Order: sequence, then C-alpha cells, then structure tokens
Amino acid sequence: MGGNTFGRLLRLTTYGESHGPAIGGVLEGFPAGVEIDFSLVDRDMARRRPGQSSLTTPRSEEDRVEFLSGIFEGRSLGTPIAFLIRNKDSRSKDYDALKDVYRPSHADFTWEQKYGHRDYRGGGRSSARETAARVAAGALAKMLLAKAGVEVMAWVSAVGPFEAQVNQDTVNPEQIASNPLRCPDPAAAGRMIEYIEQLKEAGDSTGGVITGLIRGVPAGLGEPVFDKLQAGLGKAMLSINAVKGFDYGSGFSAAAMKGSEHNDAFSTGPNGEVITLTNRSGGIQGGISNGQPIYFRVAFKPVATIAKAQQTINKQGEAVTLEAKGRHDPCVVPRAVPIVEAMAALTLADHFLRNKVASL
Amino acid sequence: MGGNTFGRLLRLTTYGESHGPAIGGVLEGFPAGVEIDFSLVDRDMARRRPGQSSLTTPRSEEDRVEFLSGIFEGRSLGTPIAFLIRNKDSRSKDYDALKDVYRPSHADFTWEQKYGHRDYRGGGRSSARETAARVAAGALAKMLLAKAGVEVMAWVSAVGPFEAQVNQDTVNPEQIASNPLRCPDPAAAGRMIEYIEQLKEAGDSTGGVITGLIRGVPAGLGEPVFDKLQAGLGKAMLSINAVKGFDYGSGFSAAAMKGSEHNDAFSTGPNGEVITLTNRSGGIQGGISNGQPIYFRVAFKPVATIAKAQQTINKQGEAVTLEAKGRHDPCVVPRAVPIVEAMAALTLADHFLRNKVASL
Amino acid sequence: MGGNTFGRLLRLTTYGESHGPAIGGVLEGFPAGVEIDFSLVDRDMARRRPGQSSLTTPRSEEDRVEFLSGIFEGRSLGTPIAFLIRNKDSRSKDYDALKDVYRPSHADFTWEQKYGHRDYRGGGRSSARETAARVAAGALAKMLLAKAGVEVMAWVSAVGPFEAQVNQDTVNPEQIASNPLRCPDPAAAGRMIEYIEQLKEAGDSTGGVITGLIRGVPAGLGEPVFDKLQAGLGKAMLSINAVKGFDYGSGFSAAAMKGSEHNDAFSTGPNGEVITLTNRSGGIQGGISNGQPIYFRVAFKPVATIAKAQQTINKQGEAVTLEAKGRHDPCVVPRAVPIVEAMAALTLADHFLRNKVASL
Amino acid sequence: MGGNTFGRLLRLTTYGESHGPAIGGVLEGFPAGVEIDFSLVDRDMARRRPGQSSLTTPRSEEDRVEFLSGIFEGRSLGTPIAFLIRNKDSRSKDYDALKDVYRPSHADFTWEQKYGHRDYRGGGRSSARETAARVAAGALAKMLLAKAGVEVMAWVSAVGPFEAQVNQDTVNPEQIASNPLRCPDPAAAGRMIEYIEQLKEAGDSTGGVITGLIRGVPAGLGEPVFDKLQAGLGKAMLSINAVKGFDYGSGFSAAAMKGSEHNDAFSTGPNGEVITLTNRSGGIQGGISNGQPIYFRVAFKPVATIAKAQQTINKQGEAVTLEAKGRHDPCVVPRAVPIVEAMAALTLADHFLRNKVASL
Repeated sequence: MGGNTFGRLLRLTTYGESHGPAIGGVLEGFPAGVEIDFSLVDRDMARRRPGQSSLTTPRSEEDRVEFLSGIFEGRSLGTPIAFLIRNKDSRSKDYDALKDVYRPSHADFTWEQKYGHRDYRGGGRSSARETAARVAAGALAKMLLAKAGVEVMAWVSAVGPFEAQVNQDTVNPEQIASNPLRCPDPAAAGRMIEYIEQLKEAGDSTGGVITGLIRGVPAGLGEPVFDKLQAGLGKAMLSINAVKGFDYGSGFSAAAMKGSEHNDAFSTGPNGEVITLTNRSGGIQGGISNGQPIYFRVAFKPVATIAKAQQTINKQGEAVTLEAKGRHDPCVVPRAVPIVEAMAALTLADHFLRNKVASL
Repeated sequence: MGGNTFGRLLRLTTYGESHGPAIGGVLEGFPAGVEIDFSLVDRDMARRRPGQSSLTTPRSEEDRVEFLSGIFEGRSLGTPIAFLIRNKDSRSKDYDALKDVYRPSHADFTWEQKYGHRDYRGGGRSSARETAARVAAGALAKMLLAKAGVEVMAWVSAVGPFEAQVNQDTVNPEQIASNPLRCPDPAAAGRMIEYIEQLKEAGDSTGGVITGLIRGVPAGLGEPVFDKLQAGLGKAMLSINAVKGFDYGSGFSAAAMKGSEHNDAFSTGPNGEVITLTNRSGGIQGGISNGQPIYFRVAFKPVATIAKAQQTINKQGEAVTLEAKGRHDPCVVPRAVPIVEAMAALTLADHFLRNKVASL
Repeated sequence: MGGNTFGRLLRLTTYGESHGPAIGGVLEGFPAGVEIDFSLVDRDMARRRPGQSSLTTPRSEEDRVEFLSGIFEGRSLGTPIAFLIRNKDSRSKDYDALKDVYRPSHADFTWEQKYGHRDYRGGGRSSARETAARVAAGALAKMLLAKAGVEVMAWVSAVGPFEAQVNQDTVNPEQIASNPLRCPDPAAAGRMIEYIEQLKEAGDSTGGVITGLIRGVPAGLGEPVFDKLQAGLGKAMLSINAVKGFDYGSGFSAAAMKGSEHNDAFSTGPNGEVITLTNRSGGIQGGISNGQPIYFRVAFKPVATIAKAQQTINKQGEAVTLEAKGRHDPCVVPRAVPIVEAMAALTLADHFLRNKVASL
Repeated sequence: MGGNTFGRLLRLTTYGESHGPAIGGVLEGFPAGVEIDFSLVDRDMARRRPGQSSLTTPRSEEDRVEFLSGIFEGRSLGTPIAFLIRNKDSRSKDYDALKDVYRPSHADFTWEQKYGHRDYRGGGRSSARETAARVAAGALAKMLLAKAGVEVMAWVSAVGPFEAQVNQDTVNPEQIASNPLRCPDPAAAGRMIEYIEQLKEAGDSTGGVITGLIRGVPAGLGEPVFDKLQAGLGKAMLSINAVKGFDYGSGFSAAAMKGSEHNDAFSTGPNGEVITLTNRSGGIQGGISNGQPIYFRVAFKPVATIAKAQQTINKQGEAVTLEAKGRHDPCVVPRAVPIVEAMAALTLADHFLRNKVASL
C-alpha cells in the first residue's frame, strides 16, 4: 500500500532509490496510437537535471531515459510504457557519515519510524531524484494532451521575498525559458538570481513559489465530489518534495472577498461560446473545468540541506552538529518547474480519459 | 469512474442528490471490533446542520443518520457501514426557475457540459448537502483514531478581513464551541459575527479560513511518494465545496524564508523521545508524520449564491438577471468546521490502517 | 480492505447483513443518460426471490428495491445509483441456538477467526441474501449492455447427476423461463425436479451447474494481461456463494485435446466480417472478446444447510449434533440463474467502459 | 485501464513485449524487512525458462532478473521492487511473415480490434513471455509467505488423456522435481512424456491440467464477498495464457453430490485446534481460509501454435494456409507449473496483508 502510483486511468508507478541501480517508472493506461516524440522527453529531463547552471547542484547525472516497452514503430501500443534512468554519479560514501544522523526537516527520522529498515544514502526513496521519473512520464502525458489542444506551462513566480509580475494572458514558454530561473519577469528574475547567489555564498537556501497555467482545457474534465479537478491538482503538487501549499484561481485571497466581488459572471464569446467575464474560479467550477484557463500556485519551502552548521541529534539521541558537505541547490524552484508541469499534465490527462466514460 | 469514493483502505463512498430521496454513504474497510458511539455522530451532524444560528441558512432538515449495516451489538463488524439521511425539506419548486440558468461560480454549466443530463434542483449532486455524509463517516473515523490516541479539531481562523489569534498549544474543543462561529478568539469572533450580519443584510457573502489541528499522531503515518500525508490532506480539503487553497505547517509563508530560519532542529524530550524544537514542518516530514502536531489552513471562497442582483446567461445564451431567493448562508465556514474535521479524520484513519502493512 | 466492491470503471459496492435493517448497494461509474426501466429490476429480483416455487425456501421477503439516487427524470445522472432492500421477514430468534455452533461447510468458523466479532444471525454478511443487491445492480448493467446490443442469459444445465441438452445457437429466455428450474431442456428439467423433491423429503440437498451465454459482444472487450475477460468472469462467478468451479469455451475438456482439434479457424462471414468456424475459444482470445458468443459453466456445491442430522462442534470445542430447522433450498441453482446473469452483466459492462479508453 | 496490475495491497505491475527491449515488473506494497534470497528467484526462473528439456521450446533466453530497487543490504525496504529481464534472443524476423495473418486461437485478431496498433512480433504483449515477470515476483511473494509458514506448490496432474494419481497429504517438491514433466506420479509421467514426444513428431500439441496445493495457511485469509479467496485464485489462474478453467476443493464434481455427502464435519485436532474431518471445502469456507490445505485445478488448452498446416485468413480477408516454423512447446504445462505457483503465492500474500487490517 506504498503510494507509489498516481492516477486512476492513466497510472504512473515510480520506483527507485537515489543511490540504487536505477530509478524509473511504468505508465499504464496510456491509450494506443499516440505518436511519441522522444526529443520532448529529453527536453523536459534537461530542464529538471542538476547542474544546468551555477544556481543548481553540480551533480552531473546525464539522466538518459531508456524506454523498455509500450512503444512500437513510433507510436504507443496501449500497453504499459516502462522506462528507467540509471544512477551513474552516486557518491554514496558521502552519505556514510550521515547514516545515523537525523538531518533537520528531512525524512530520516520519519522513515526510520515507519519502516525500520532504510536506504540512508542520499535520502534513498525520499530523495527528490524520484521526480525525474515523473518528468519523463509527464512529457508523455503532455503529448496526449497536445492531441486535445491542451497546453501546460509553469514558471517561477516568487523566490524568497521577490515576486514576479506576469501577464497570464500573454505569457509563453519562450519567455519562461529566457533565463535560468524560469521566471518570465526579467527584472524580478535578476533580483532573484542575485539573492540566490548571496545565499549560496552564505551556505543558506531559500523557498519560492511556482505558478502553473493550463490553456485549452475543454469543459467537462474533473469529477464532482472527491475527485474534483482542483483536488487532483492539489494532491499532485503536494506530493512533490518540499511543497507546503497549493491554491488555485483566487486562492487564499478569496477568503477575504465578498461574493459580489468574487463571482464570475457568465457571458457569450465571439463565436457564441459560453465564457466567464472574469476567472477567479481558475477555470474550475464544482470540480469540473469550464473551458477557461486553469491557474494555480505551489509554495516550496527552503531546501533543508544547508552548509551552515545546525544542531540536531543522532539515532542514539546524542547531540550532533551538522555541516552539509554534499552538492545541493540553494533554491529548488527553477528545477521544480518541469516537475510541476509534469504532475499537472498527468492529472489533466487522467481526467481527460476519465471524462470519456462519464456519459454514454 | 465518478470519483465518489475517498480513501484506500478505509473507503468512503457517498451518494445522493440534494433534492432526491436521500443522501448517504458506505464506509468500507472499517476494522471489526470498534465500539460505536452514535451520540458522537449526532453531535457532529448537529454542528454541520443548517439553521443552527442566525448566521446560517434556515433550511431545517433534521439530518438524522440511519445506519443500515456493519454494526452489531454496539461494535463494528468489519463489514461495510452503510447509512442514509433522508431529504425531507426539499422545496424543489424553488429551483424550477433556475433550470436553464447558469448561476455565476456554480457548477450548473460545467455539469451540463460533462454529463448532458443533470438534476438541476438545488445543485443536485454538486450541492454541499453531500458533505453531510462525510460528516457522518468522519465521526466514525474519529472513533477509530481515538483508540490510537489521535484527536482531530478545527476552527474558524479568518472571516473576510478578520483574523483570529489562537494558541495552537492550548486551544481545545470547548473554546471552539463557545461561540456560534467556532472561532476560539472571542474578540475576533465578535467582529466576524458583526461583519457577517452586515453582509446578510446587504444580500452579500464572505469567504474565510479554517485551521485544522491533529494531536497525538504517532510517527510513521503517510507514504513517502505520491501519497504523502499532506497530499492526502490537501486532496481531502480541496474536495470540499468552495475550498480554494490548502497549506500546512509554515505553508505559503515558507516560500519567503531561508533554510536556516525554517529547519526544525531535532532534540530529545523529557522521556528521551525524539522531538523537534520548532514545528514549521507541521508534523510531517518527507510525507510521513513525525509525532508533532499536524496543522493546516483551508481557504474558502465567499458563498456563490447571493441575494444581490447578478448578470449571467441561460442555456440559450440569453442574458439573465439573477436574484437568489432561496435560503443560503452568508458565510459557510462555521458549518464547514465539522466537514474539515471529518475529512481530516478519514485521511488520518486511512493512513493509520495503511501503516499497519508497511513492515512485516 | 474488505472486498465489498466489484469492478473498475463500473463499480458495485454492496452492504448489509442478512438480519440487519437492510441490504443494498451503490453502483458508481454508471454513465449519464441511460434510460432506466424499473420493471426489469423487479423482474430479475422476482427470479432470485425465495419462495417462488415449492423447490425453493419459503422465506417470503418481498425484496422491493428502493432507489435513492443517481436517476432523475427516468435517466441515469452519471452519479452513484444507490439502492436498498429492507430486511422484513427476519426471524432472527431461529438463529440464537446456532450462535456458538460451527455449522459444517458454512462460514461461521472462518468468520470468527478473521473478525472476532460477528453477526451470527442467518450468516450475517456471509448469507447469500447479499446477492440480492448484485441482482438489482446487474439489471442496470443489462440496460447499459442492451444499448450496445449485448444480451446476457443463463440457465440450469445440471442438477445432481442429471444434465440438460441445450442448443446454444437457438436457446432463448422464453425457453429458460418455461419451467421453475430455469432449464431449457424440458425432459431433463422433469427429472431434476423429481430428484430435488426426493431430496427435500429426505432432508438433503444437491449441487448443480449453470451455463451462461452472452451474445452480441463486440470484439475488443477485455484486457490482455491480468484482467483478461475470462479472468473477470471467473472471479465474478467464484465470488458467488457455493460456487466451486468455472470454465469457459472448451473448458476442462480442452486439457485432453490436441491443438489440431482445438484451434478455431478464422474465416469471413456473409458480410465480410471476421468469424471463427468453430468456437472452442468461447468468444475470447488472448483475454479479449472476438465477437463470437461467450459461454461458460459455473459449478455449485450442494446447499450446506440440510435437515439431516450432522456431527459438528461448537465454539467451546464440544461435539454437537445439528439438525437444521430453518427454511432452506434443497437446490440453489434455479435461484442462482439471475445472480450468474447479474455478475456476467456487471463484468461485461465494466469492460465495455474500459474499452472506451484503450485507444485515442 | 489496461489491467497490467495484480493485487490490492501487494501489487504487481508487469510490462514488456515479447520482442521489445525488455520485460519486467514492479512489485509495490511488499513490506519492509523481509530477507531476500535471490537464488530462489533464479530457481523459479529456471523452472519456467524455455529450452529446459527436449519437451519444451528451444528458445534459449537466459532470463536473468536484474533488480533495480526496493532491496538494500539484503532486505526489502518497503519501497517498490522493480526488476527487468532483457529480451536477448528475439529473432523477430521469424515473425514478419505473420504480420497480417490471424493465427487460429491466438490474440492477433482481437488485439487489432481493440488497439488498432499492435506489436506483431511473437505476440507482443500477448506472449506468454510476460509470465516470466510473474514468476520473478512470485518468488518474492513466496519468501513473504514462508515467514508465515505458508508453502505453495503445484504439479502436472494431467496431459492429454493421461491423469496422475497423487496423494495430496504426502506429495512434496522433491517428487515434483524428479522428472522434467513436474508430475509426481512417475508411471503417469512416463506415459505423458511419450505422448508429448509423439505429438511433437506429428507437429501437434496437447493440453493438460495443473494441480496447486497450499499448506500452512492460517485461518482468516480472504474476504467474504467479492474478494473471496477462491475468487482471487480463480482470477489469478484464468489470467494465465491458455487457461480454460479453474476449480477448487471438490470442484466441478460437487455439482453431482448431495449435501450430506459433501459437508465437512468440524472436529478438534490433537492439540485442541479446530479441524475438519474431510476437506471437500478445499481449505476455504465463505471465501475465507479455514486452516486446512487449499487445493485447486487449472485446465490448459493445447498450445495454439502447431506445425501442422491450418486454414485461416489474413487482415485483408484472404484465405491463408499457415504452417508454423518458430520454436514452440508441444505442451505448455510443465513450464506453467512455476507460473501457477507464482500467481497463487501473489494471491495469498496479498490476502495475508489484507487480513492485517480486518480488525483493530
């Protein structure tokens, strides 16, 4: 009952420990007949990969995805798509010293309480390295969604105290890709980069916010009760390492608003289609997409591994001073952008399939 | 694939439309041998019921829960616990006029797009009346959790612009129950009540925030990857009608913090147990409970149904002016407190069972 | 994890103990827009009901199905269809004497080992009364299948040593309904009825075989690996009380055949469609329907409750002589015919929906 | 919704096409802390492997299982156990000629109807090669069961018209392993081998029966309604390629018996434990194990691929004469013995875990 599977009709199961032989996944329920563009997988893997820029950890894994099944003559077969990513650059000796130490705000203690036996090397299964498998599968989900006209993107909207100003109507992937931070507001990006470099120097880290945007969603995706579209997106995002919060549409700000300010009036668009004049609903009403853009925010805590000295204890209950020596990101959000996109794409693609059986 | 079931080992399936014969649920996977205290079900049902105070809708349903199975001689059998709640006071004629109107920020339009055929009376299955079944099942989940020493509570922490000051170390159910708003800060509660009454007068509504707190959770609940404990709680809360956001522990504020400020140092408690000196982790690390209190926030949008005139369209695309005449809450959060508790209890109880099979 | 749910996209959850307030079910995933003919539910309920003829138990429950949700204006809403059947004629006092006795070949002992706490009245949840909920849901599944041209029927093909001769190409529901045994071979039916009446007199019981037949199945239903169509049908049938075996197509007789005798040659039919010249495959190849009729056999053991004296023990390990005094069928197969049909219909309807998402 | 996952708490997902890069699986829900003996995996893989004797296909794959995750320092971590088996000896050119031919009693036609796009090389995903992943996972399930004292074995009990006489009380793995047919009746085995060699000469094939036996099962495994233990075993067996029937305990023969002959009287054993004096129940009552040995039969059809000329058609509807030239078994049952054991072990291990949450 380990919770290593995501989705109902499109089901991703991931496996692998950070310093074991490999990580990978099996994507089941992917429909037959979809053309697979492997270069899009490579592109998203490169966006998640460590060592992309001076802002991120130098661990230099190539992260090549090897597909083992489910694709034949360039198209999906309808059978499980299995893939693996070998763990090549795993200096597990770095971690021997940490074998018995409970690192602050890491999963060492909780894992040990739950399972007794654990792989202490680099976080084992708790490592964010697991998300590489999500990104690979998410790229496939994007191909499926593209067939239905759905486009998924995400960007860095805050780092520490700095917030970006972004026009959601016009933002595009090129703007997001224009700087290593994946923040489409160049001025804010500059301040964020400077801030991250200062923290790196100081052996510290910072949190941040990623905004996700999904355009072209047909009305009707999502289920009305427990599996509301926002509930699925929220679970997807909160399952990403270091995420502390999720909101969509007007989000937390809605709590302070009046109904008369918040409601989205219905109207008709240029082609007679039903539209809303505002979109505080964030493209979802009653758990079901209404055809307007879906947008949401995902809050990340600061990276727990820092170079600064910290007090903690070990398994024996003894006080220990910890000074991390490994290779770690001072800020995880730029690399988390493709992970957010992948989880959003997997969620939407699953609901796209689910909607096919809603009515006869 | 309708998404009417919540949970993996402890599984609640709910059914029923707002103005059909009944709503209800089936709770499967509830272990055999748990003593059932029906008065605790009644108590939580009363806390959710409409018409409790002048602040809430006067719909005067008795909401009596009839149990049909799964309990014998005062204890659970291990078989499905089925229950129903009859819909007695359903003035469905009130809704005939709305049959073809797309109410702003309601599910009328999206439901029609998804299913074609819909029960337009009072929102049908989209009505928050469905949550009565969750409260009944949640009361049972609380009984299971109580056996393990786990206590679940929630309170109103913000209404519109007013925020409560609450000491999470000392807050208790009696303080929460001391006013009709379920806000344990009496001064703030006074201002909130005044505000809601003004809005009621003006035919408007407001949003708010509920804070949840779970004490006594043993370390080890939650799964490390997709089914992290916070992901389950987030999904649970975002599946409640009108919820727009969820965060836990330091939440959205973590995004602006540094790692050196945010990390929770481990230490040992008076009995040698492992504790953290701070609890920005919100009782969860790596998706698994660490034994500290779990706390989280849930943001609710303002009630969409307001008496003020609103512009919208009908099914035929014609402009319509809408003035709601039904019986509606100006602020949903006081009644949503037991719903938040119920969903938290169902989530925790499920993970409590799941943890039983994590190791041999 | 109680196993009270059947199906993946069309999911039936049943609940209820034999002598509790009610039994019933929730059918989730039934698509919106299907017209519901309640008389077809009543008809199948009547076919399963006790007391239909002198051959069956006189327990005179009316078994009226009350629908609580999911149907509006005569059509399915796409929401859960919940229903209940009250337990009216439950002389539970009959069972008090059996409270501590382990009846031979019943579930008393195993249930007690598993759950500790059990409802001993009339078998509780282990009673075949649970199958009434399956028959109600199966009638709805048949309505869905009828839309796709699929027809499900079953008949008694053996009772004790007597076997019926039936032409599967021409058999029809009228022939099956022409005698109380539901055996379309009138000569065999006569011998079977005589045999059952002798056994009744002697306080004994007999087993039997039911044959199922499904016509009009489109090619493509079923999944190629674990969820082969025959695996689903087999599980469905083996989940019925008293069933000891299942085979399909050539079945157990295939074990003694040669490949050159057994293979079904492909050819083309009058309209150019692909057919097989024989149908030892039973309409399924590689787990997927091929468009030919699906047929299968289900073996039932003799009813365990008999009037003849039997030796057994009680909970205290003491020897006990048991002489059943309740109202019991000497042969369960005539009443099991609609149960077999219901489980077949639920299985096929689930795969019908699953097939909608197999390819894009 | 492809049906590539088996089990509820212990979940095996398999992947891979016969002539793709690899086949493999992910076993999720395997508890932490179980010692893993890789030699037992190798042993079962060797028992399933082609080319073991002159009776089986000469395809000489090494079938080495590479484990990728979930095991650390010789014990399970509680995380997914992923493994793969490379496809080395895949002469896919052999199959080019069959690209458009519908082989009799194979899945070519049904697969094409379902998915449109298919991997025609050697059956693709429909090939029995997929079962190698089941055997690998089954070996792990056996290790888990061994901890609970449960032993799983199977043997060939019939080939064509020849049936073995086996004493279920005394049969053991050594007797089964004493001949290449895995039949513990040496006299019958001799006749069966002679028969198979004749068929091989004649370019024909035969069916057979495998009997499974599970000893040491504690009382309480299995669920009372849809997930009866026999329903799970039946599904497991019917999901194996070429299986046409399943029965357990008295099986199909029960249909002709009287209740007074069939019932198993309860008594007490030498240590006061509850036993049954006979075991026509096959160790399962009301879907739940009673502590007696579980036994069942699995019927296999003759191998569909034969060297003898056969009439069939191709995709264009043209008549084609087929003479198989590949490497194929004349009788699949000896190699299917470890597959039957694996599926039984996976089923029992899943129910072993499920039973841990049945009562508090």
